[in-house]
Amino acid sequence: MLGPKRISATAIVAILVAIAGLSCLLTRAAAPASAETPDAPATLVEFTTDGKVKQPVGYRKWMYIGTPLTPNDLNGGEAPFPEFHAVYIDPESFAHYEKTGQFRDGTVMVKELLSVGTKEATSGKGYFMGEFTGLEISIKDSKRFKDEPGNWAYFSFGHTYPLKKESAKNAGASCNQCHQDNAKTDWVFSQYYPVLRAAAPRSK
Amino acid sequence: MLGPKRISATAIVAILVAIAGLSCLLTRAAAPASAETPDAPATLVEFTTDGKVKQPVGYRKWMYIGTPLTPNDLNGGEAPFPEFHAVYIDPESFAHYEKTGQFRDGTVMVKELLSVGTKEATSGKGYFMGEFTGLEISIKDSKRFKDEPGNWAYFSFGHTYPLKKESAKNAGASCNQCHQDNAKTDWVFSQYYPVLRAAAPRSK
Repeated sequence: MLGPKRISATAIVAILVAIAGLSCLLTRAAAPASAETPDAPATLVEFTTDGKVKQPVGYRKWMYIGTPLTPNDLNGGEAPFPEFHAVYIDPESFAHYEKTGQFRDGTVMVKELLSVGTKEATSGKGYFMGEFTGLEISIKDSKRFKDEPGNWAYFSFGHTYPLKKESAKNAGASCNQCHQDNAKTDWVFSQYYPVLRAAAPRSK
Repeated sequence: MLGPKRISATAIVAILVAIAGLSCLLTRAAAPASAETPDAPATLVEFTTDGKVKQPVGYRKWMYIGTPLTPNDLNGGEAPFPEFHAVYIDPESFAHYEKTGQFRDGTVMVKELLSVGTKEATSGKGYFMGEFTGLEISIKDSKRFKDEPGNWAYFSFGHTYPLKKESAKNAGASCNQCHQDNAKTDWVFSQYYPVLRAAAPRSK
């Protein structure tokens, strides 16, 4: 009986490990890298049936890549973008970028807008982040946005709170043309995002 | 021969799934929440036998919390902190902060320094991040730093590249006093970190 018993025990162990393995693999498949807490999204972004994109959730846990600042007081009081911009990319697309230097299909970039808060602190005069004021995202998708230059589409959830819950694609070339003309890498202003620059394979 | 062949195929599948499962489980066990790529750290920070801290790895994948900026040109050419500061907190301590509003024992905060790059772009006049120039961290540890105010210790890996690989604790009250006098929450300048402010339980 020794032989069969050994086989049986081995089989049970193999089945248990297989179940654990399948469970583990399925969990990983369902959860993006950003899902560090229960409120993180099961999908990066969701679309409504009429093609609007829903406000992303959990993006502050994505990869931060840089912060441009063009305040009103340096632009005659009428800056086109008077806020701090905290810019993120979804973690899986960042991992792909680290390997290839390319933005993969499905890349989501987030530009969170923050007011200029105080302009003086114990560390000196300057600019300190105030309140969250707005949210914009761009998505690269060669199927959904096959007619957009570079396959990038741009969405705004507003520049004042409360933000919109859903956003239709920005009309025409409102964002795309400037990105196409001035952004360094595939419609992305990588020249202003040091984390992206350092992560590109050629920089290593 | 049909029966044995079927069993054999099932066994092979079970073994393959088991191998995948084990591999998956082992990877997850070894990797902290921030370890989205192989180069991420197995521990948050490591100390040398003589109490220096080694340069942290993978911190750009931690939680970004804010970017103060006090450039030279607004501080008579001699700003105490003339760089952009990209500030991060380790993800597990952030999760604890989200629940409690407290910085747990073991919290690591990273201040990455970036030069001011260009001051004009198509989006307007302002400040755009240039190159990485320095790295500083603070660690809260009630055992290791039991004699420090608030149990916080401060470390600098330098303000020019190449950075130091290890750093001894900053002497005396060089950083601590200012943090103690001016930082809003437990020696942390949370008033300038909107992501922290929004994450605190009282803000929800």
